[in-house]
Amino acid sequence: MRVFGIDCGTEFTGYGVVEADCEARTPRLVHVAAGTIRLNKKEKTPLRLAQVYAELTALMHLHLPEAVAIEDVFFSANAKSALKLGQVRGVAMLAAAVCGLPVAEYAPLSVKSSVVGHGLAAKEQVQFMVRRLLELDDAFDSADAADALAIAICHIHTAQTLQLQGAGR
Amino acid sequence: MRVFGIDCGTEFTGYGVVEADCEARTPRLVHVAAGTIRLNKKEKTPLRLAQVYAELTALMHLHLPEAVAIEDVFFSANAKSALKLGQVRGVAMLAAAVCGLPVAEYAPLSVKSSVVGHGLAAKEQVQFMVRRLLELDDAFDSADAADALAIAICHIHTAQTLQLQGAGR
Repeated sequence: MRVFGIDCGTEFTGYGVVEADCEARTPRLVHVAAGTIRLNKKEKTPLRLAQVYAELTALMHLHLPEAVAIEDVFFSANAKSALKLGQVRGVAMLAAAVCGLPVAEYAPLSVKSSVVGHGLAAKEQVQFMVRRLLELDDAFDSADAADALAIAICHIHTAQTLQLQGAGR
Repeated sequence: MRVFGIDCGTEFTGYGVVEADCEARTPRLVHVAAGTIRLNKKEKTPLRLAQVYAELTALMHLHLPEAVAIEDVFFSANAKSALKLGQVRGVAMLAAAVCGLPVAEYAPLSVKSSVVGHGLAAKEQVQFMVRRLLELDDAFDSADAADALAIAICHIHTAQTLQLQGAGR
């Protein structure tokens, strides 16, 4: 199972591709790719959205994931910033739909719980565990890329749990 | 000048295409097309976004506008609904960018001022004036389609004002 995680942002959008053999008894997670789509703040919004869309679509075609995982956002920021984030998120989900990929959404709490073990983990703890689970030596391209890898890992853990539950029936 | 107006919504997205001869002394506005993209609420979000994107892109290719006008949103609703509206808005702006069209954003107040003459006009007053300016007899396809026509008219009026200002220099 190969999952494409996305951490949307109006300036930086992180992506992370993780693979796991869900059939194995003790599946190992493998880091496939991760990076950051950096948007030019001077560019107008429609062109920035076109950049996110083009890069995500190209990356999905390159890495051929089976699913896309994206962070579900619940936050108390003002409506204007939620609208702007929504614009990037809409384009990311469109890229997945156009590539024929299912999209799963996970709340930040679920991502932290899945990667660290509890939902109140700090950003550093999440990054430490992502590095450990994927046996990474190098620094992350960005905090957004690390978050995107965490979201992908969360999706794999969820799929594995659902599979175990199915096998236990 | 032909303008494609869009009134984004998570359930219904209205569109309206208006043409005007900006070179004429007393330009006449012409209604080209208007309608509503109705989304299936039972469908998952990525597929709904793909529907909006496909329909808007097809309509832009069909009507060949020179510009896209979209409502700028300032509202006090909760962040969750702003995020959802942003998703549709992002996809609409992407469709314009992919079709190579410039996007202009107008605040609701500007749209009402431009069509009715003052920013506190009621929805019915806006619809009455849209009907009158475009010499329409038939009922609107939806309130969203009427709003989209109003946004397109606002863009034309703004372009005409800018042109007059330029001529007066």
